[in-house]
Amino acid sequence: MASILIIAPHPDDAEFTMGGTIALLARQGHHVTILDLTDGEPTPHGSIETRARETLQATAALSPPENPVARINLGLRNRQITHDLASRYRVAGVIRRVQATILFVPYFEDAHPDHLAATRICEDARFDAKLSKLAMPGDEGQPPIHPTRLIYYFATHLKIVPQPSFIMDITPTIEARRAAIAAYQSQIGPHTANAGLAARLDIEAEYFGSRVGVAFGEPFFVREPLGMTGLTFR
Amino acid sequence: MASILIIAPHPDDAEFTMGGTIALLARQGHHVTILDLTDGEPTPHGSIETRARETLQATAALSPPENPVARINLGLRNRQITHDLASRYRVAGVIRRVQATILFVPYFEDAHPDHLAATRICEDARFDAKLSKLAMPGDEGQPPIHPTRLIYYFATHLKIVPQPSFIMDITPTIEARRAAIAAYQSQIGPHTANAGLAARLDIEAEYFGSRVGVAFGEPFFVREPLGMTGLTFR
Amino acid sequence: MASILIIAPHPDDAEFTMGGTIALLARQGHHVTILDLTDGEPTPHGSIETRARETLQATAALSPPENPVARINLGLRNRQITHDLASRYRVAGVIRRVQATILFVPYFEDAHPDHLAATRICEDARFDAKLSKLAMPGDEGQPPIHPTRLIYYFATHLKIVPQPSFIMDITPTIEARRAAIAAYQSQIGPHTANAGLAARLDIEAEYFGSRVGVAFGEPFFVREPLGMTGLTFR
Amino acid sequence: MASILIIAPHPDDAEFTMGGTIALLARQGHHVTILDLTDGEPTPHGSIETRARETLQATAALSPPENPVARINLGLRNRQITHDLASRYRVAGVIRRVQATILFVPYFEDAHPDHLAATRICEDARFDAKLSKLAMPGDEGQPPIHPTRLIYYFATHLKIVPQPSFIMDITPTIEARRAAIAAYQSQIGPHTANAGLAARLDIEAEYFGSRVGVAFGEPFFVREPLGMTGLTFR
Amino acid sequence: MASILIIAPHPDDAEFTMGGTIALLARQGHHVTILDLTDGEPTPHGSIETRARETLQATAALSPPENPVARINLGLRNRQITHDLASRYRVAGVIRRVQATILFVPYFEDAHPDHLAATRICEDARFDAKLSKLAMPGDEGQPPIHPTRLIYYFATHLKIVPQPSFIMDITPTIEARRAAIAAYQSQIGPHTANAGLAARLDIEAEYFGSRVGVAFGEPFFVREPLGMTGLTFR
Amino acid sequence: MASILIIAPHPDDAEFTMGGTIALLARQGHHVTILDLTDGEPTPHGSIETRARETLQATAALSPPENPVARINLGLRNRQITHDLASRYRVAGVIRRVQATILFVPYFEDAHPDHLAATRICEDARFDAKLSKLAMPGDEGQPPIHPTRLIYYFATHLKIVPQPSFIMDITPTIEARRAAIAAYQSQIGPHTANAGLAARLDIEAEYFGSRVGVAFGEPFFVREPLGMTGLTFR
Repeated sequence: MASILIIAPHPDDAEFTMGGTIALLARQGHHVTILDLTDGEPTPHGSIETRARETLQATAALSPPENPVARINLGLRNRQITHDLASRYRVAGVIRRVQATILFVPYFEDAHPDHLAATRICEDARFDAKLSKLAMPGDEGQPPIHPTRLIYYFATHLKIVPQPSFIMDITPTIEARRAAIAAYQSQIGPHTANAGLAARLDIEAEYFGSRVGVAFGEPFFVREPLGMTGLTFR
Repeated sequence: MASILIIAPHPDDAEFTMGGTIALLARQGHHVTILDLTDGEPTPHGSIETRARETLQATAALSPPENPVARINLGLRNRQITHDLASRYRVAGVIRRVQATILFVPYFEDAHPDHLAATRICEDARFDAKLSKLAMPGDEGQPPIHPTRLIYYFATHLKIVPQPSFIMDITPTIEARRAAIAAYQSQIGPHTANAGLAARLDIEAEYFGSRVGVAFGEPFFVREPLGMTGLTFR
Repeated sequence: MASILIIAPHPDDAEFTMGGTIALLARQGHHVTILDLTDGEPTPHGSIETRARETLQATAALSPPENPVARINLGLRNRQITHDLASRYRVAGVIRRVQATILFVPYFEDAHPDHLAATRICEDARFDAKLSKLAMPGDEGQPPIHPTRLIYYFATHLKIVPQPSFIMDITPTIEARRAAIAAYQSQIGPHTANAGLAARLDIEAEYFGSRVGVAFGEPFFVREPLGMTGLTFR
Repeated sequence: MASILIIAPHPDDAEFTMGGTIALLARQGHHVTILDLTDGEPTPHGSIETRARETLQATAALSPPENPVARINLGLRNRQITHDLASRYRVAGVIRRVQATILFVPYFEDAHPDHLAATRICEDARFDAKLSKLAMPGDEGQPPIHPTRLIYYFATHLKIVPQPSFIMDITPTIEARRAAIAAYQSQIGPHTANAGLAARLDIEAEYFGSRVGVAFGEPFFVREPLGMTGLTFR
Repeated sequence: MASILIIAPHPDDAEFTMGGTIALLARQGHHVTILDLTDGEPTPHGSIETRARETLQATAALSPPENPVARINLGLRNRQITHDLASRYRVAGVIRRVQATILFVPYFEDAHPDHLAATRICEDARFDAKLSKLAMPGDEGQPPIHPTRLIYYFATHLKIVPQPSFIMDITPTIEARRAAIAAYQSQIGPHTANAGLAARLDIEAEYFGSRVGVAFGEPFFVREPLGMTGLTFR
Repeated sequence: MASILIIAPHPDDAEFTMGGTIALLARQGHHVTILDLTDGEPTPHGSIETRARETLQATAALSPPENPVARINLGLRNRQITHDLASRYRVAGVIRRVQATILFVPYFEDAHPDHLAATRICEDARFDAKLSKLAMPGDEGQPPIHPTRLIYYFATHLKIVPQPSFIMDITPTIEARRAAIAAYQSQIGPHTANAGLAARLDIEAEYFGSRVGVAFGEPFFVREPLGMTGLTFR
């Protein structure tokens, strides 16, 4: 079982783009942690309290009873995430604390400045986490570690057509994903500008599922080629 | 367990480029068949008899005792493989006969005319094999089938740097691969123009292995994105 | 108004992949012709008569009353379309007959041999149609013409994720597209192996629509860059 | 009619690379604004006063009498443009002030540090401009807005061969472009190191025009696919 | 000095796209041969006699007095070039006859059917030429040879923007190129539909020259990476 | 003879990735300077003194007696290289001081934060170095200069498969490269986590050499197309 760290600029980014995969990996027994870099506020209809409650609810929706998904908030400032040494080291501290071997981070083409900054922070923090002779803030004394994989997920703000390196079959966990997405009513409820988003995200999952012959899928990208030990793909 | 069909223009193409994967899949219990399209002759130092004997020896080297690799020769004419309906249907007949669900075929950029023709024949035959209401020569009465995956391997004549979709870890079967390659002394022996090829193929396997952190690897390409059901890759 | 020729290997290919665009262009007053290269038979549940009836029905569904879509069948042999001079010239004859300035043809990556052959036939026929001093079969005495645009549509057999050069907004004609697709009950009816196809095609149209901010869209590709005379895109 | 904002690191960048398009869009009645981030000085033969005068003259050359092009200078420091929050918000303020729906910004591969920083500032500012509950400096009380398109133009310092998403036909406004370019004598006059630049820019326009069959063209790139509502391209 | 073979579907293709490079290589003392696959006729204003005379004149224009360019016509049928074994072997025969080590062939994306067929013939013939134990028609008893390089030139019918692997500086031979192009008055004279072509070809040469900082250049593409022995490029 | 500046984030980066090319260019008489941005320390088994001694030894290994390679350390802080104006100007100062016309810098995809920052610093510094009316720190009064080429080398931390623009034949200097690599025992000695690195680097050189038909090669990338004045490549 691996220790997997999903890094999201804002609460809801992880759920909207890879909620099915999170639920799947947790069901399979991996140690899964979501690290939200900010509290995501302000937004037109949200508040810090509402957002925190929704995040709790979404995390619960993704969590199998026997192996709940852990969640950490790094407390960076929403709308102002900056690619700097301090942010890198704070993320590296979490990587060490949970001894993550797999990172999921936002894809490097995006429209949201926070996402682009988060991607660069995480790419660097992956390396920072392995530096010898240097403590990282919040590492709780855990030793340096170099995550073997950094995997990009596709956030929704830029309307590109992703070219995925692989697609995760999330058919078994589509309902958990839907429930997690639905938790964020302050962001996508009928009173918001994003009222149709949940339906659109479902369409995306169906479309990418169709590319690998399953009902629902989530696309991912890697720069470093995938290594196989057999025909362990569809 | 899957039925896997590796299609090679000439005896030795499969061994030189994916011998380790063939041995690995056979060890894992899959039903593995190599289909050579031609006898590979004439060559500067070969003969039909020599080549057939070498092929037998190479097949044995790739085969675990409990699950030998099957081998078929289609009898097309070496140096003159042509992308036509008759060739497509003959390959489709073999696909049906072994009820293959996975095809390995040469990559679509190559320097050898036989390889380029073979690629196109196989791409088409994959579809031909599923056609209803139409027998295929040599199908032995087996029903239509549509292989779910067509995977390209990288033959060695064109000096490109492949961009693999994935790399198979062949560390467990590198010796089988070496033995299979060494069987083709008429092609790569010290008296031939390819005297250094075995060493160069080893270098390639080491290089691609290094890209996924293992000792030896073989690169592959797919057009259709890979589907995953978990973190089933390195 | 332009004369537009959509070339489909089989009846239903045009409808399944660009039915909304066909209906849209006809509504806008262009002269639209669909050229089916074959009758599409045999198929598991079809017959020549059934297929012809369905094709008529689909054409009607795409046609605005005041500007019906024309339809021609070239009579090539299904499953055996071959990229040869005779086929090229027959297509070139139709290009001249309707004096087409825009061609829509299948994308050059596909799983169906007929599609790949059709693409190459059409690419060549575009040029053949302009040759001086040479009559083409079926040109009905019309003069040589060089279509200014050859546009690729994405057929459905290969499960790639297309990278479109542009996406046509088919929101105004989604119902015409759906009706045209539904006409092919022998191919996608509940008794067939393609029972879910209509729903999947709808998902695709929704997905590609979402990439340009509309309800439904169809993706297209061009090799030659698009020329604009203003901000005539969304 | 749209509100279009062209963002240039230095006065002359917009004219040199998309002067024909600016003049064309203004002639078509759009509300067009050029935002120069800096005054462009020092340069070998320029001065702030000269450059300002040249900029005025160039703007006039691009402007049809009935719909003059607006021009704003943001006052960032030449040679030191930095991708930071303050710069982003200042650009976002202008986006709001003119309620821009279309942005033109420098392409993301370039040799000039100011251009690369400008691109990142603008990509982020596009998103910043839509943030709720947050005033932007210089927004003059205008509400948040999200430009629907961000289009990249190709500046001239890096000698790549661009792969354009589309080419604008600037045949009708080539003389306006030439006049605007000629206004910058302090930068490209016969006494400068760029003495041949005007001729080279003409060559570029002819070359890209030739790709879409017109006399003169300017190339552009978009990450998000183009949406069409008909055959509104050459 | 190398033996260089430029293969052109029709007389004028070599001159229009790489005339400057041909003249340059001949001046540098290489043994240069142009192989025209057809006589290029019929065309609207040409005749076999005219075309032959123009070809002679163009060859002379490219040839330095001390090292004239050789020229061979293979006699394939214009407009009907077919990628088949017979054509491959005839080209392979010429490769052997001149013992070519470098081939120049048309790029693999083109609008002209003859060009696409020629490209495939030449790619295959490069390999056929090295086959042992097999004579080739017209090889005049010369031994098998494997050209170390196959280089693609960009013909003019498809309006793509090439992405060259390298650009040849043809500033020293631009006048020879112009004279060679001008020889084909039956194809590009003022009475033809291609009246502006010579000027457009000049623009292209200026544009590609500008990408490497010289007055005139011609773009080329290779699939196999370039090998260098020093900083032997601009 | 050119003045060539190789910029490395840490001592050993230049040797590990392009040591053969450095030795080759020095042998050919070019003026070669390696600029290390930091001292590379701390590392698990290194010290500033050890590293400095190893660097001296490596530089000697790369240097032909008659034309030693120069080496400069910029004194930036290891692990904290930041893409900012001060760093850019310090690099620009060195570019001017040695009047470099060719720059080698790390490729823009990498896993090490210092490398990514170094790449951006160098890309900008190339332009900064040519700015008029502005002294750069450390330029020693040398005038502005614009290096005509910026060439990327591929560092080893990210396990991508590079797509090189060209490969340098380093067969003549492989021993110098090996000796230079071996100098860094504190980094790759048998007591370190990188014990196998020297062997792996040799494999890489053999693999890339094989792509251009030589024993050993090093891959490089350029954004701007290569300009040739003849067949000056293998």
